[in-house]
Formats: sequence, structure tokens, C-alpha cells
Amino acid sequence: MAFKTSHSDNGTAARTGVIATSRGRVETPNFMPVGTAGTVKALTPQQLIECGAQIILANTYHLFLRPGPEVIRAFGSLHRFIGWNQPILTDSGGFQIFSLRENTRVSDEGVCFKSHIDGTTFSLTPEAVVDIQNTLDSDIQMVLDYFVPPPAGRGQDERALHLTSLWAARARERFLKTGSRRLQFGIVQGGLHSDLRQRAVRELLAVGFDGYAIGGLSVGESKADFRRILAETAPALPPSSPRYLMGAGTPEDILFAVDQGIDLFDCVLPSRNARNGTLFTSRGKVRIKNERYKTDLLPPDESCACHTCRRFSRAYLRHLYMSGEILSSILNTIHNIHFYLDFLAKIRYAIVSYKWKSFKEDFLSLYQGV
Amino acid sequence: MAFKTSHSDNGTAARTGVIATSRGRVETPNFMPVGTAGTVKALTPQQLIECGAQIILANTYHLFLRPGPEVIRAFGSLHRFIGWNQPILTDSGGFQIFSLRENTRVSDEGVCFKSHIDGTTFSLTPEAVVDIQNTLDSDIQMVLDYFVPPPAGRGQDERALHLTSLWAARARERFLKTGSRRLQFGIVQGGLHSDLRQRAVRELLAVGFDGYAIGGLSVGESKADFRRILAETAPALPPSSPRYLMGAGTPEDILFAVDQGIDLFDCVLPSRNARNGTLFTSRGKVRIKNERYKTDLLPPDESCACHTCRRFSRAYLRHLYMSGEILSSILNTIHNIHFYLDFLAKIRYAIVSYKWKSFKEDFLSLYQGV
Repeated sequence: MAFKTSHSDNGTAARTGVIATSRGRVETPNFMPVGTAGTVKALTPQQLIECGAQIILANTYHLFLRPGPEVIRAFGSLHRFIGWNQPILTDSGGFQIFSLRENTRVSDEGVCFKSHIDGTTFSLTPEAVVDIQNTLDSDIQMVLDYFVPPPAGRGQDERALHLTSLWAARARERFLKTGSRRLQFGIVQGGLHSDLRQRAVRELLAVGFDGYAIGGLSVGESKADFRRILAETAPALPPSSPRYLMGAGTPEDILFAVDQGIDLFDCVLPSRNARNGTLFTSRGKVRIKNERYKTDLLPPDESCACHTCRRFSRAYLRHLYMSGEILSSILNTIHNIHFYLDFLAKIRYAIVSYKWKSFKEDFLSLYQGV
Repeated sequence: MAFKTSHSDNGTAARTGVIATSRGRVETPNFMPVGTAGTVKALTPQQLIECGAQIILANTYHLFLRPGPEVIRAFGSLHRFIGWNQPILTDSGGFQIFSLRENTRVSDEGVCFKSHIDGTTFSLTPEAVVDIQNTLDSDIQMVLDYFVPPPAGRGQDERALHLTSLWAARARERFLKTGSRRLQFGIVQGGLHSDLRQRAVRELLAVGFDGYAIGGLSVGESKADFRRILAETAPALPPSSPRYLMGAGTPEDILFAVDQGIDLFDCVLPSRNARNGTLFTSRGKVRIKNERYKTDLLPPDESCACHTCRRFSRAYLRHLYMSGEILSSILNTIHNIHFYLDFLAKIRYAIVSYKWKSFKEDFLSLYQGV
């Protein structure tokens, strides 16, 4: 078994565990910094390690377009290409069917894309996505999925789910022939319809995967819908497999999701916010360009042990941001990624030490206090 | 004495030495990475140290405008503000009279600037520049100087020199009253006129400084003029004081200048080229976007021990550059700054080990071989 749970909370579905990959262990719950194009923006792999990263996410669609599989093949793996020796999970391109939907055409066979880089067209099938991910040698591979953004008519969501299930079976078949020492996760779709989500789970379980992701959330739906679908779907997934909530979220979202038994997260929030000058701290978000920080000698977060907080002040970070300096993105990203990874480490420790409930309360009362 | 020479070459004026400052020693010849706004673009102070930096350059004019002296004052020094505990040399704003000349008005008293950030006007006098540099607590302070870009009429160059000498005396007077544990360097101007350069040297020596810089070069003059003025001016400066060639240059320029007895350099070339995808290597410049590097597994420079060359390939650096990733600027800057600092370290070692002549020949034959 590639996944072992260790501790479970009494009052909720929160739990700790370990995902074993051939490139190392991933303690769960955990957060994957997003390295779409083969780099977590503004960080070296060494800095990622120092921030506590155990696994990163990269994107099959983007890497397929640039640099292209033939470049990765010359290196033997994405890991060697980008200088990161720990596990990598690769997204499938399914999210790009949504985010680049102006330039896609979906059929039973797969999806036809018009490149956002040079306008050339190419198609991705569930099988091709597995093949590309095998070339990347990614440790956890997501199947090609399909969803339409809310609000969509039920018919559209049903068709998307139909294709997602069809593609999942084909992807699994290809994977079992070619990718066996790696892990492959299925993706639950179904829009905001409870019954479609349950059907999605049944159809994925019938195929059988090494882990299960919940997709199609954090794409514009209301917070209430997000929580409802998450709370309904997560418990339907087998406890013996890792559960991955794709593309979420805020610290509050993560606490809620861990309560539902989610083990794995990814989100651009910490890195994107960093570049926009917003820092996550134990007391809430800090917008570093604020005039009040002009001569502030304190680090962004006095309780943080990251490289940025140990060495730099709010005033200096404000100066770098106002001056448009690259170092602003670097130091802010170090802090935010460290904040998220440290947050997840604290979540694991709270669960293991039977303090999950009080941890959540303490965190939220301080975090929302700003 | 703040400066001690140790070895001198037999055939040329090349020499090694040490500049002692209250924040540490600077071995010479040496190169100062440029940190205009209080950051060497794209590098953390820790990465600068790992690249071998002993001293960096920062700019009085830019830091005066942003974040402003009141911010630095809250920290006690520029060093504490930016998290760099080693020596800092600060330029005076004299170069900005040239580079921002559309927005300046020069009088005997000083210079009136219109801010390039918000359009407000303010004036800098030689005395004010010393005061600002004392607030920055910079270890080596440049006097406010004035030059006009070539080709200028002799009359203009004479007037500029007249003001530079006048201001130098006033800056020295202020410095001796207020900044004594720091070092202050005078700046030789005089355009491309040999006699004006000699007069500039005489007038500066009559005032007396802790070191002497050659300014007004690498600002658009021909390579022949650059070399002529440098070769005429450097020997006129006292051997017992450090000599600083401002704003130069290419590796070839540096070899030539060390031959003339120059001890200190600064230049934006390695960092600016890095951001533009040009890498300095022992075999010459590498333009990383070149298609030939697409699947190149080798590091930028096989003989380089920098963080970038130890971990990353030309193919990956090309990918980062083509994708417009911040990490491209980071890894390229690490390499180029390391290249320059390592180059200067090799120059020092060559002089100390009586191999200066053969070092130059070997370097140039390999460097120009690409």
C-alpha cells in the first residue's frame, strides 16, 4: 500500500498519514506548492526544501507545450530537468480545458487545444496524458478530466461527468500497462449536483485508483456550495486512499477540508499573493505596501521562522515591493510558502497530539483578529 | 592606513591589497555587485555571500528618494535595513546628474533634481550627500561629482571639472567633521582631455582622500579613448591609495584596468546581462535562448562551481528564460555574479603567485574562443 493513515481525530474525519513514493514520503495532510512550468515561481529548489516542501505540483499541459516531452526525455525525468529530487504530482491538463476553454474542443476521444503560446493545434487523449506523465516520470499522476464552470446546466455537468468517467477508465488501463511503480489518482467531478458527485465517486471506485481527487471546486462557486460539495463528497471516498482537494485554498478552507478527511492540497494563493505583496501571517493577511509599514522594524510575522522573517523587516519588504524589485517576489514567496507548509505541519502535529479542535479554534481566533 | 598593498606585478601596475573597513576587509582587486536600490537585483544577501561578494555598491540618490533617509535612520544603517552586514560603497548621485540629465539643473551650490518617481524637485549639495551617506552609514562614500557625456566641448568639460573639484573640497570638509571612521573617495573627472584629467588628479590630491576613483568613463566613449584615459590617469594616482574605476566593465576591460593598477570595480553588466539571458562563461558569452541549448544537459560553464552550474543545465535555463520565469533571472544572476567575483579572485591569485601575464593570456585565449 502506498498510503498509510496513522492518526485519526475523534470528532471529525481529520487524519494523518503517509504517501510512499519511490522518491520519498509525503506526510499528510500536506500542501503542494504549484510549479506549473517546472518552477515554483521565484524559488530555487533549495529554498523550497528550506521552506519544508515535500512534494510539488507541475502541469502536464504546460510542460507538454514548453519545453516539450522530447526535452524532458533527454533528462530522463522532470525531476532531473528542474533539479528537484523529491516527489512531483502532475496535473493532467483537465484544468486547462476549463481555464483555456476559448481555445479547446472536447470530444469523446479527448480534447483539442489551440496552443496559448504559438496558436498551433494539438490534441490530448486520456492515454496520451498518461504517456506524457510517464515521460515526466511524475510520482503521482492525475487522469485527464473534464468539467464546465458553474453555473452550468445539469445537462452540461452530466456530459462532462460522462466523459470524465470514460476517460478515467481509459487512463487507468494505459497507466496499468505502463506506469505501475508510480501512483495514479482519479478525479471526482459532477459540478454542484450532489447526486452527480456520488455517481462520479461510484464510477471512479469501479475503476480503482491509488488516490482520489475532488476537482471542479474553487472555480467560482459560492463558499456555501464549495463546503457542501466537499462535505458530501469526501466521506464517500475510501478511507484507505489519499484524498486530494484540487486548487484550494485559503487557510480557512484548508481547516474545513481537513475536517472532511482531505489529505492533500495545492493552490496558487500563497505564491500569487506573494508577488502581489500580500503576506499570510498568523494574525491574518498583511498588505505590505501599506504606509503603516514604512519604518516598521518587525518581521512580517513575529512567530515565523522562515528565511524572510529571520532576516528582513516589513519596512524593507515594503521598500522592495514599492520599487518593483525581483527580491520582493522572492522574499514574499519564501514567507508565504513557508507559512502554508508550516501551517500543514502544525495541522499534522495537532491531529497526532489530539489537539485538533483547540488548534483550529486558536488558529482562527488569532488569524481573523487582524 | 585603511589600505595596504601586498603583491605587485613586475611587468605591469597590477597589484593586490586589502581595504580595511569597520565592517570587514575587502581584498583587491575586487568587484562590487550593484545594488542600486538596496538590493542586488534577484539575489538574497545570503546568495551574494555564496557568490563570494565582499562588498556591494548602493546608490545615494536612489535611496534618498526611496525609501528616504528617515526610513534608513530608523534602522541605524543601510546594512541593517537590507540585511547585509559587510561593507557597502555608496555612489553619490553624480552619475544621476548624467543619466537623468533631462531633469537636473547644476549650479555652483549643487544640483537640483526633479524626481524620476513622483516629479517633485529637490536639491543635493556636496555636503548633503555626505550627510545622507552618513545616515546610510556606508563604509566607502563617493563625493558628489559632475561630468558631461562625450563628446562635449572642452569648455563644458572644464566647467564640470571646476565644479567637481570645488564640490570635492566641500565634501571632504563635511566628511572630516562627521564621517571619520568611514572612508571617502574623490572622483577624477576631465572628460577625454589628458590635461584636464591630470589637473583633476592634482586638485583631488591637494584635498586628500582615502581613495581615488576614475569617473566619466564607460559612458559612450570609444574603447580607444577609454583605454587611453585610463592608462594616463591611473598611474598619476598615489600607489598608497585604492583606485576605483567606476562603472566598468567587460572581463577584457577589467584585465586591462588591473594592468593599470586599478583595485576596485563595479558594473551592472553581469546582473543586467543575466536578466537578458546572457551568461558569462570561461569560454565567452552564452546567449541562453539559443535553440542549440534546447536539450543541452551541460551546465552553463563546466568549469564553474556556482549554485546554478552545480545543479542546473543549459536546457533548463533556456526553458526558464523562454517561459519568462523569475527563476531565470535568479539563476542567471547567481551565475554571472559568481563568474565576476571568481574572475577577480583568480586575478588576485594570479598576481600573488607571479602568474599575472600567463593568466591574462590563458583567460583571453579561452574567453575569446567562442
